[in-house]
Amino acid sequence: MKGKVYLVGAGPGDPELLTVKALRLLRSAEAVLHDDLVAPEILQLIPSTAQIHNVGKRCGKKKILQGEINFLMVALAASGLRVVRLKGGDPLIFGRAGEEIESLRRANIPYEIVPGVTSAMGAAAAAQIPLTHRRASGALVLITAHRASGNTANKDASDWSKFVATGATLVIYMPGQNYPDIARRLTSAGLAGETPCAVISRATTRYQRTHRTTVLDLHRTPQLASPTLLIVGEVVRLADPAAVTAEFLVPDLTSEKGSLLPVAVFKTFLSQAPRLGADEEPIA
Amino acid sequence: MKGKVYLVGAGPGDPELLTVKALRLLRSAEAVLHDDLVAPEILQLIPSTAQIHNVGKRCGKKKILQGEINFLMVALAASGLRVVRLKGGDPLIFGRAGEEIESLRRANIPYEIVPGVTSAMGAAAAAQIPLTHRRASGALVLITAHRASGNTANKDASDWSKFVATGATLVIYMPGQNYPDIARRLTSAGLAGETPCAVISRATTRYQRTHRTTVLDLHRTPQLASPTLLIVGEVVRLADPAAVTAEFLVPDLTSEKGSLLPVAVFKTFLSQAPRLGADEEPIA
Repeated sequence: MKGKVYLVGAGPGDPELLTVKALRLLRSAEAVLHDDLVAPEILQLIPSTAQIHNVGKRCGKKKILQGEINFLMVALAASGLRVVRLKGGDPLIFGRAGEEIESLRRANIPYEIVPGVTSAMGAAAAAQIPLTHRRASGALVLITAHRASGNTANKDASDWSKFVATGATLVIYMPGQNYPDIARRLTSAGLAGETPCAVISRATTRYQRTHRTTVLDLHRTPQLASPTLLIVGEVVRLADPAAVTAEFLVPDLTSEKGSLLPVAVFKTFLSQAPRLGADEEPIA
Repeated sequence: MKGKVYLVGAGPGDPELLTVKALRLLRSAEAVLHDDLVAPEILQLIPSTAQIHNVGKRCGKKKILQGEINFLMVALAASGLRVVRLKGGDPLIFGRAGEEIESLRRANIPYEIVPGVTSAMGAAAAAQIPLTHRRASGALVLITAHRASGNTANKDASDWSKFVATGATLVIYMPGQNYPDIARRLTSAGLAGETPCAVISRATTRYQRTHRTTVLDLHRTPQLASPTLLIVGEVVRLADPAAVTAEFLVPDLTSEKGSLLPVAVFKTFLSQAPRLGADEEPIA
């Protein structure tokens, strides 16, 4: 008798941002191992008959070791249970899923990975920040501020110069509450003080809070509830409608090459819009 | 009378990887403007009463200009319709949502952004590649190979040296079919020929195909159906169970510091697993 493990992304917080598949799997789970920061509203979707284990490792305060999580997951599946390993956001980024997958492979436990909406996308959507923009940033860099012990891939994890040098939008997962330290690391990495940034707390939930600031003033960020996420880069300016300056505007009725749009194209489209009346011209 | 626009991520392809919210909005949409590469199975979820516009711009062959999409979206919403602007993956990355949002703001159209599972996460899940790994990569860089006309943010978009210099896992969206060119750009950027990479075509759908190779052999990649995605970096080795070498393994029963795990911890956990019998010891 063999069970199966589903490594499932829980998304950024709002239960409606679970994928349809994640919801289906949660509702039929017999055991759930979840991270600390999965929203309570999501945990409530788990059937009462399932066993639920919080295997969260909060920064600094490790309640459980990774090896223990791997062992528990394998043990539950080997006992025949349908196990959901539920991780905040997407399972394959900053989630140590790689190590969990290796455990499952070695124990010959069937598994499946179910991607989720990663926190960067959830926070950006909530704060209305396009993460890339033709005129501001053509790439996205996802890093973590958390200095994991035993992390040999990032020996110089505290040095962000290479990431800053890309000119890309920078999304920092798990920034923690030590904003003066984060600000120092960003400045040392070469970011200008006026670079805009935004701390988003509990994105996509009803408790969501967004604090917009600059690298210079980042150290004055108030303490916001976890999970938080830090977005750094020129795109953050686009979060605020008032800050949308002319240079970012693309004239609606002008094509990218500067000539007028063929209005006939729209007449064809709009004729299909049943509720469009002549007195409701959409664009003045 | 005013409608509303929902900028919605359609996820990587599998309709079950829509978020619950995206599914709800699609099912109640009165007009849908969708990208070319949204899976047909997802478009089938749109009610037959809704008007559907394919506003896709395929690489090179622009059927419609961005200004036209903005105009159409505003016009439909201003006519009172509940409009879903459906984008592959997540709307805020490589989707030009920034420009669409600016149009909506200027036209004073209410809007909401609904994040989705971005293609990188979908492809990684499908190919079982952890995008970050403690021993292989501590960061993720998302870029696009598509050289958008008028893109002033990426004047040197063809130079990937800065991205390669980060040492992070590199995910290249819209790599196109010119793999010799991509290989040249990666090599010029400083990547070693033996760096593993994977091309994932139509990830998470039943037509999914994965081609694993190296930077050196990338030019020999077969033509695979769009959408495709290219993942580059040491983590790609972890996709293949046979390639999981000892250096990547974390002994299950050994803590990260090298001492033995407190077995009592597991006894407590396992006592809660109703189906675990003594003859089903999960780990030998």
